[in-house]
Amino acid sequence: MSTRIVVIGGVAAGTKAAATARRRNSAAEVIVLQNEAEVSYSSCGLPYHLADAQGIPRARLIARTPEVFRADGIDMRTRHRVEEIDAQQGLVTVRDLQQARTYTQPYDKLLIATGAIASPLKARVGAAAPQVLHLRSIGDADAIAQRLSGVRKVVILGGGYIGLEMAHTFKALGRDVTLIEAMPHVIPSYDAAIALIVEATLREHGVELFTGVRVSELADGGVILETGNRIVADLVLVATGVRPATALALAAGVKLGDTGAIAVSPQMATNLPNVYAAGDCAESPHRVTNRPVWLPLGDVANRHGRVAGINMAGGNTEFAGVLGTGIFQVFDSAVARTGLGHVEALAAGFTPVSETLQAPSRARYMRGSKPLTMRVTADQHTGRLLGCQVVGADAVDKTIDIAASALWGGLTVSDLADIDLAYAPPFSPVLAPMQAAGELLGKRLGENQRAAQAIHQPAQT
Amino acid sequence: MSTRIVVIGGVAAGTKAAATARRRNSAAEVIVLQNEAEVSYSSCGLPYHLADAQGIPRARLIARTPEVFRADGIDMRTRHRVEEIDAQQGLVTVRDLQQARTYTQPYDKLLIATGAIASPLKARVGAAAPQVLHLRSIGDADAIAQRLSGVRKVVILGGGYIGLEMAHTFKALGRDVTLIEAMPHVIPSYDAAIALIVEATLREHGVELFTGVRVSELADGGVILETGNRIVADLVLVATGVRPATALALAAGVKLGDTGAIAVSPQMATNLPNVYAAGDCAESPHRVTNRPVWLPLGDVANRHGRVAGINMAGGNTEFAGVLGTGIFQVFDSAVARTGLGHVEALAAGFTPVSETLQAPSRARYMRGSKPLTMRVTADQHTGRLLGCQVVGADAVDKTIDIAASALWGGLTVSDLADIDLAYAPPFSPVLAPMQAAGELLGKRLGENQRAAQAIHQPAQT
Repeated sequence: MSTRIVVIGGVAAGTKAAATARRRNSAAEVIVLQNEAEVSYSSCGLPYHLADAQGIPRARLIARTPEVFRADGIDMRTRHRVEEIDAQQGLVTVRDLQQARTYTQPYDKLLIATGAIASPLKARVGAAAPQVLHLRSIGDADAIAQRLSGVRKVVILGGGYIGLEMAHTFKALGRDVTLIEAMPHVIPSYDAAIALIVEATLREHGVELFTGVRVSELADGGVILETGNRIVADLVLVATGVRPATALALAAGVKLGDTGAIAVSPQMATNLPNVYAAGDCAESPHRVTNRPVWLPLGDVANRHGRVAGINMAGGNTEFAGVLGTGIFQVFDSAVARTGLGHVEALAAGFTPVSETLQAPSRARYMRGSKPLTMRVTADQHTGRLLGCQVVGADAVDKTIDIAASALWGGLTVSDLADIDLAYAPPFSPVLAPMQAAGELLGKRLGENQRAAQAIHQPAQT
Repeated sequence: MSTRIVVIGGVAAGTKAAATARRRNSAAEVIVLQNEAEVSYSSCGLPYHLADAQGIPRARLIARTPEVFRADGIDMRTRHRVEEIDAQQGLVTVRDLQQARTYTQPYDKLLIATGAIASPLKARVGAAAPQVLHLRSIGDADAIAQRLSGVRKVVILGGGYIGLEMAHTFKALGRDVTLIEAMPHVIPSYDAAIALIVEATLREHGVELFTGVRVSELADGGVILETGNRIVADLVLVATGVRPATALALAAGVKLGDTGAIAVSPQMATNLPNVYAAGDCAESPHRVTNRPVWLPLGDVANRHGRVAGINMAGGNTEFAGVLGTGIFQVFDSAVARTGLGHVEALAAGFTPVSETLQAPSRARYMRGSKPLTMRVTADQHTGRLLGCQVVGADAVDKTIDIAASALWGGLTVSDLADIDLAYAPPFSPVLAPMQAAGELLGKRLGENQRAAQAIHQPAQT
């Protein structure tokens, strides 16, 4: 008898798991239950599609259509919403939204890849409130595109990745943009040294910015701040974050972790037999802290899905963990991070030492050389790199990927100074930014060590 | 009494060592003896300066002038040529080319940073030969710039980094270019899969290319090949490689390694007491093979110089080794390598497995996404990455620096598939090229292992 693999969710983790299981086990039956009409699209591409619908047409965001999955032998059921999981019986209750009927579907292996949902708006919404939209699914993007005509003024709530990318998108579309972040700085997961530069970039490009202030109400065609300020808006984009979509899992007895997302083993298995979880609804082990974290990111979802797919198909592999690497574009700058920031490192029990530095992206005399600002953190005791954050208009992705590779290998700051990176004037200064960071941190660690020794040694006379 | 540190050579390694020693030991006397008029210039920038003298004026290639070094307390003596080293007495004989006088200069610590010189032309040079130039020093670049007016047709001998960069430069200046490489393919240190793509790029951009053929004579206003073919040339650039400038060191009793360059300890010390060597005249330990190699590259010279400078100033540090990382630009493509190629890995005693693959540089739907071609090599027994070569029009430098960082940390192909790299559509596809390479190599290693086990196990009945 063939294994029946059922996947709930058809975006990143779900389709990757289904396709992987299909390839690994040609005898298995693979069923995907997806409540949207479309599958396997790039959520991360939505801001770029909205900014330039001609250059990046909607169809290009869809990696594979349901038909392509079906041709590969995957039973792809779109507009099918799972309403209940019965892990004891090994079946799910499914609502076919097209046919308006409900049925039960047995499984041998089940994957929960229900993703994340936008956090709800906390402010009161009055009668004369402007229209409120989110950007999470491809349907959300369609809604924004449809309602944008006539909109002159957009207010974005939330200064995370999506909020900043969409500030860029709306400005590219010629709209006035105001961005409001409740925390003291935008991108609160970054150290302030980096966030301040991003804020300057936003202002340079004409984005009106309010930080450290909450929205109390949407009313009278605008947004009212807790300070009483009123900002006119034709459209409000709520980008105040997401939370894992765990209602279905919770109701079935699936255990959540401290992060609020589904706790999983390295095999991506939940506490229930034969039930796996992957993607934005599940936790990941962090390789620097060795603690579970919740990182709702497309590439993590993809790697989760691969591991779950292999294991459901009868293989045995483990998810290798995350570093918390992320990157986004805002106007002409890129902003990226990997590993721990200074405060995160403190919280995780390290003795962090951090430095902020500027370095040119290429030989200074080459066109296209731009300054990078880097914030690097290492552990005083072991000399190990703990994290890196970068902002700039060039080579940010390269610099952060070097840092991520270094973190993966557990390299120290002296390794960083020494790595034999590729040098030629069009690509790098002779001392690469990451090498400069390694030298600076190495010097600082040495000074701290000497200072500590001086304190502990009696003065010699 | 203060230490007297004497440095022979004032380009990359020499000036880095002098500046480092100066910073580390403010009591030391630091003297640099440089036979050229200029110091501390970017040799690697010369092709770019020649291609675009307005965008990259000559002065910008000079990182620091002699005056700046002198202001920092370094006794910078330009146009001073060292003629002899007497290691027993601890002094060097110096010819002051300006004043036309010879003197002896005592030292406590000596650094030989004499660099490399162009390999001599092997072909006969007839009476009516076209003008023959090299590109090694800033003076060579001046000579090329001066003699270029009236030149319509350039023949480049040698298809290494300099030959290819200069093919690009001469085409940018509107000249006809023919490139001749004696080996079967250009960039002979790369695997053929990569070299073939570079050859196609050269031809696409109108460079006439001859490979696998030697030049027998320069005569009658052209180059005559061993096949009898005659190629008209107004100017011949000889870029058939360089060799370490070791005559001075050899005469003093300094030992060379098997590569022909100066053998050094991890401290960059030679066999003679108080005599160090650094830069293009010295060997480096290769971190993958653990054998000395000779890599005349600017960034290696810089790192050599730093280590020698610290140690001559009374510190104690070691050079961490090289990976053989290199990169160059040719027209719209970049070409890069790190670690070992397939044949090099075989020669070093590994059991290499290599794969060639194509991957997009960014999400396929983003403008600017270009295909990368990668050649990756891993060891069958340990799964360790051994090397990577990449060619393409985007993200080559990033991809090779990820590989170099992975090699530095001794990562395996399964690590490569898993590294948490930075993903967002403008910067990377969701499966980064290096992750795709890791997955492909992992699959191949697994297949080979299963095949080997099948051979060694008796058939079951």
